[in-house]
Amino acid sequence: MAFFTGVRFAGKNAIELKDEKKAFGGKQLRFRHNSGVLNCAMDFSVFLPPQAEREKVPAVYWLSGLTCTDENFSSKAGAQRVAADLGIALIIPDTSPRGDGVPDDPDGAYDFGLGAGFYVNATEQPWAKHYQMYDYIVKELPELVESGLPLTSDRAISGHSMGGHGALVIGLRNSERYQSISAFAPIVNPINCAWGKKAFSGYLGDDESQWRQYDATVLLQERDSRSHDIPPILIDQGDADNFYPDQLRTEALIAVNNETSAGAKIRYQPGYDHSYYFIASFIEEHLHFHASNLR
Amino acid sequence: MAFFTGVRFAGKNAIELKDEKKAFGGKQLRFRHNSGVLNCAMDFSVFLPPQAEREKVPAVYWLSGLTCTDENFSSKAGAQRVAADLGIALIIPDTSPRGDGVPDDPDGAYDFGLGAGFYVNATEQPWAKHYQMYDYIVKELPELVESGLPLTSDRAISGHSMGGHGALVIGLRNSERYQSISAFAPIVNPINCAWGKKAFSGYLGDDESQWRQYDATVLLQERDSRSHDIPPILIDQGDADNFYPDQLRTEALIAVNNETSAGAKIRYQPGYDHSYYFIASFIEEHLHFHASNLR
Repeated sequence: MAFFTGVRFAGKNAIELKDEKKAFGGKQLRFRHNSGVLNCAMDFSVFLPPQAEREKVPAVYWLSGLTCTDENFSSKAGAQRVAADLGIALIIPDTSPRGDGVPDDPDGAYDFGLGAGFYVNATEQPWAKHYQMYDYIVKELPELVESGLPLTSDRAISGHSMGGHGALVIGLRNSERYQSISAFAPIVNPINCAWGKKAFSGYLGDDESQWRQYDATVLLQERDSRSHDIPPILIDQGDADNFYPDQLRTEALIAVNNETSAGAKIRYQPGYDHSYYFIASFIEEHLHFHASNLR
Repeated sequence: MAFFTGVRFAGKNAIELKDEKKAFGGKQLRFRHNSGVLNCAMDFSVFLPPQAEREKVPAVYWLSGLTCTDENFSSKAGAQRVAADLGIALIIPDTSPRGDGVPDDPDGAYDFGLGAGFYVNATEQPWAKHYQMYDYIVKELPELVESGLPLTSDRAISGHSMGGHGALVIGLRNSERYQSISAFAPIVNPINCAWGKKAFSGYLGDDESQWRQYDATVLLQERDSRSHDIPPILIDQGDADNFYPDQLRTEALIAVNNETSAGAKIRYQPGYDHSYYFIASFIEEHLHFHASNLR
């Protein structure tokens, strides 16, 4: 890692560099570290643009959807080209705790357990020991990468589907930490869809009042009514998406957005589905949106 | 497929549309057809740019490397963005015959048999019945897609590693059919590397004189000395590529290129490896190169 100045690989924030590839003049990196929050070893990917050789750069955090790891967005979205142009780092975590000791859905379902952490802090057993993805994304991962890589503390957050839910919830609840929020086909109202009900009842228990802190539609209304700052928000939703409208419930967020002063820009993209081809088609606009707010 | 005018899905060129996704305003398509040349069902992918809704467009054929299918380039290279901008279709075949009746390397090696057709017409048993990838790429596939999709007969050809070898060999031997050739990290002198010796002895037998028709370095020299037309050629090679120089033998082609009037542009890209991050970083330049020759 002589490539970067100021990188630290020892002490409590020790991380192992597993892979390094040149891409668009910058570096696509993959790390493994021991997460104290998640109680397991975690992989994550980082793209550092060429500008990071000379100066600290801001970062867009990308949260992926159900079944993904850090590698889906890294290999399929084409985001590095734009990030290299704009001088933005990409921080790409996994979607759940991982490893032999981490419990999975007893039936191996794709929408709960491994690959499906839903970016919450679980309170129920046996999930609570490891499934603390909210704190991992908000606190532990930024501390780690900002201490070891040439990053400013300027952050934006984005994601897809379950990760779009995560980006909206984390961005809205921590508006002092993120300068902008975007999402592709996010689950905007999980307390009212099948995916969300299954995940939240499993991780958080039956008291639905505990679910509301992880629901973007609820949060947008609450934060607006309490005059909290709400960062600029951009959302794209394909109208040929298999999961629209039942699981994603875009209309619920649009209704609240129209009632409030939040001013989120929520766009339908005709003919696009839920795949990475949709993300690849619009990631350039999202990164330009974040760049305009990060500078 | 009402999206395109003039598409034919019946008769001897019948093809099944397996998947269709909107991407960059165009369509990423995946087809299955019964190949008479390969004696098996074959999948291939096509990107049609938005311009194909209104008019016939030229095509770049992409040949992938060892272990790949049509899906690697489709999902990882980010080529659709540029192709949509330039009004170029992408035709992306598999790398070998496939299916239960198709023999594989007895040890399941990655560099022979399934996923490793090397774009030759096999003459040895048991390979000859199915492993006819040269004729499939040169004749059957173009006939099929040009009869059923809104394509002109303007073609360029490109590829990666084993597919870069295929693009160079097929383009050089059929200069009347391809207006330009490009390659990423191609195997340029397979008769003198381990991958090529294994593949050619297996598919073509021990008579090394039969190997020379599939060796880009040999072909470039022969065609130059016989004053054949040689299409414009662009090659990129990463200098941090694990397979350089032993398997790829870039220097052999450079030596011949320097002796002849071929004028191939062969570039070393510092720090890049053999991965799709390398391809993604330079595919825009390759497609612009092809577009300038296709128009």
